[in-house]
Amino acid sequence: MAVPFHSVDSSAKNSVGEKSPTIPKGDIVNIYLDNAATTQIDEDVLKVMSENQVHYGNPSCLHSLGQKAKELVENARKNVADEIGATPNEIIFCASGTEANNLALIGFLEESKKNHIITSSTEHLSILSTCKYLESLNYEVTYLPVDKCGIIDLDLLKRSIQKNTALISIMYANNEIGSIQPIKEIGEIANIYDIRFHTDAVQAVGHCKINAHDLNVDMLSMSGHKIYAPKGIGALYIKSGTNMQPIVYGGGQESGLRSGTENTMGIIGIGASIGQQRSNSYANLKRKLIDGIISQIPDVKINGSIESSLGNIVNICFRDVDAISLMLLLDKNGIQVSPGAACASSKMTPSHVLTAIGLSKDDAYSSIRFSFGKYNTIDEVEYVLEVLPKLVKEIRSNPI
Amino acid sequence: MAVPFHSVDSSAKNSVGEKSPTIPKGDIVNIYLDNAATTQIDEDVLKVMSENQVHYGNPSCLHSLGQKAKELVENARKNVADEIGATPNEIIFCASGTEANNLALIGFLEESKKNHIITSSTEHLSILSTCKYLESLNYEVTYLPVDKCGIIDLDLLKRSIQKNTALISIMYANNEIGSIQPIKEIGEIANIYDIRFHTDAVQAVGHCKINAHDLNVDMLSMSGHKIYAPKGIGALYIKSGTNMQPIVYGGGQESGLRSGTENTMGIIGIGASIGQQRSNSYANLKRKLIDGIISQIPDVKINGSIESSLGNIVNICFRDVDAISLMLLLDKNGIQVSPGAACASSKMTPSHVLTAIGLSKDDAYSSIRFSFGKYNTIDEVEYVLEVLPKLVKEIRSNPI
Repeated sequence: MAVPFHSVDSSAKNSVGEKSPTIPKGDIVNIYLDNAATTQIDEDVLKVMSENQVHYGNPSCLHSLGQKAKELVENARKNVADEIGATPNEIIFCASGTEANNLALIGFLEESKKNHIITSSTEHLSILSTCKYLESLNYEVTYLPVDKCGIIDLDLLKRSIQKNTALISIMYANNEIGSIQPIKEIGEIANIYDIRFHTDAVQAVGHCKINAHDLNVDMLSMSGHKIYAPKGIGALYIKSGTNMQPIVYGGGQESGLRSGTENTMGIIGIGASIGQQRSNSYANLKRKLIDGIISQIPDVKINGSIESSLGNIVNICFRDVDAISLMLLLDKNGIQVSPGAACASSKMTPSHVLTAIGLSKDDAYSSIRFSFGKYNTIDEVEYVLEVLPKLVKEIRSNPI
Repeated sequence: MAVPFHSVDSSAKNSVGEKSPTIPKGDIVNIYLDNAATTQIDEDVLKVMSENQVHYGNPSCLHSLGQKAKELVENARKNVADEIGATPNEIIFCASGTEANNLALIGFLEESKKNHIITSSTEHLSILSTCKYLESLNYEVTYLPVDKCGIIDLDLLKRSIQKNTALISIMYANNEIGSIQPIKEIGEIANIYDIRFHTDAVQAVGHCKINAHDLNVDMLSMSGHKIYAPKGIGALYIKSGTNMQPIVYGGGQESGLRSGTENTMGIIGIGASIGQQRSNSYANLKRKLIDGIISQIPDVKINGSIESSLGNIVNICFRDVDAISLMLLLDKNGIQVSPGAACASSKMTPSHVLTAIGLSKDDAYSSIRFSFGKYNTIDEVEYVLEVLPKLVKEIRSNPI
């Protein structure tokens, strides 16, 4: 199946950051730097999905076609489990990272006798909105602040623990600024105080080496479309022995925790993709982009920390530049990025993450996230550095 | 993309029930008569999905790649709306028919001041299990009985209405015996008493001509994988002006009612598939199968009604025959069907639908569902009628 992913020279896409031919002048440019919003499906993953279309049975059916589909689902479950050091019976497939986060919080708390949750102010909206819903049901939620790098204070976490604390939910890595939380230390604290610990690892899986058991994590959320698998598939790791209620009721699929006919193609996709894409090779892309921007464009500031963050995310404030205007101009030049608010970029409110790390509203509205994927190259970054300074200058010369 | 769906002569698959070449003796046979459990993806639908893989943006993103994905999602929404006489803003995409049913019941009742639901005893488990959950939250549920054809009594429905009745949820067509409920009459009753009306139309869409507005339906559930679209995609029609709460919280996609990055490929799939597959041409297959079985096999009984049911479902009790043994033997002969309990066939309890229409436990355990799809042919039915009598005889001669 020939799927034209990029319109620039495809020989440039085969490895992360390797030197590749310069993007030919005059060619249609398509430089996708929004991989934290979503990735394209890996061609090999698509191939595996395509080859298995023939096994279209319902995995709940006992005939050969159903059982073959079930076998494929279970193989994928093993791959997902292996990636995070879990056992297959600890993996529940669902429709998205968002649903995984909802199931973790609502499903766990419905079974808990305690009613206090500790989370952070920079979580993904699927955690924050679920917490708001839980507050409407009289659960108590503590939202920990973060420092200017986006990291929580472990002492404050300890001091926030109450007798009725049921759950700590702190994301592994932030989707806007890439900051990586001290998950191991949080797991140790949760263990000492005998509190369950959930982490939204949607942005971390594929970038960080994760062993859920070593980290004392009780629940961990994953998503397919951030790691070159399709949209519409997510997974939740639930440590064996954790009592949960479902949030979707029905035929009792996924150990009774997530009813509905299994999304077999999505499951096969995440199973084929996971474990294939981990990369620490974004460092040269990130460094080149940051150095280039800082050296060429005045009045810029890196949001968060360069060191304690994911290798593939760079979030930069271009002072006095409207980020949406810059994003649209970059798009016209074939470069896709997200303004501050990332996935929820259609909402015209300043990013809660950027304001939480201390940015003013104006600076939050002037920030752009660049997020690399495995198909990006140094040449693409060079092209961005050719185009970007001119566009920033253009916007600054013509204030709204 | 060449996907070998059936292993029998593919020229026999192009139209419903048309005379086609006899299945060659000795060939590998694969006669799929379990289309009510799931269908394969239509090749044209797969093609549309495949061609659009290039538009991999996140529909929430404002750049061109995101907006193109959004456009595809909105086109699909229009197709789904058109199929049931709704407007696009009345369609919410979710992960399955099961989730659509959960959202309809839980999402509606959370917003309602009333706490009584009327449903039927033959609903899909995604309705019945959700009702059990709602009962645990102190909602009151009336489960209407059905007659031997699987149809509710409209007078009893009227008499079951209470001051606190918030919702009637009655399925359009049953997934096990195909019985079609009097949806128009139920809609009229709901309208007269000013009660909202939800129908699980997962099995009906693609087989029945549906106009949600004409039928006075307030909510209607659909599923992709029953109509030659992928697994993992469903949709809920919600009449404009109906107040609802989400059951999955987050970024606020799908008008705030179903958060999570859109399953764009699944959405494109259901959009391409819906409206393409409606068929009333199963009558000859159904008649031939029933006549052949009745004339060749003693002690059989049609479950439900032949007339007031879907054209593609035949449910038959083979007395003193263990249905799972028969299903497995048929499978060995290349014919896939489901025993009584259908999708949930891995559960060893008698079908609640078959017991509700009056079958004994033994008869329920002796019942098989044959469900046709658009690729089935008269030749396939003839082949089944060659094989089936021998297998039934074999089982009856060797009781467990």
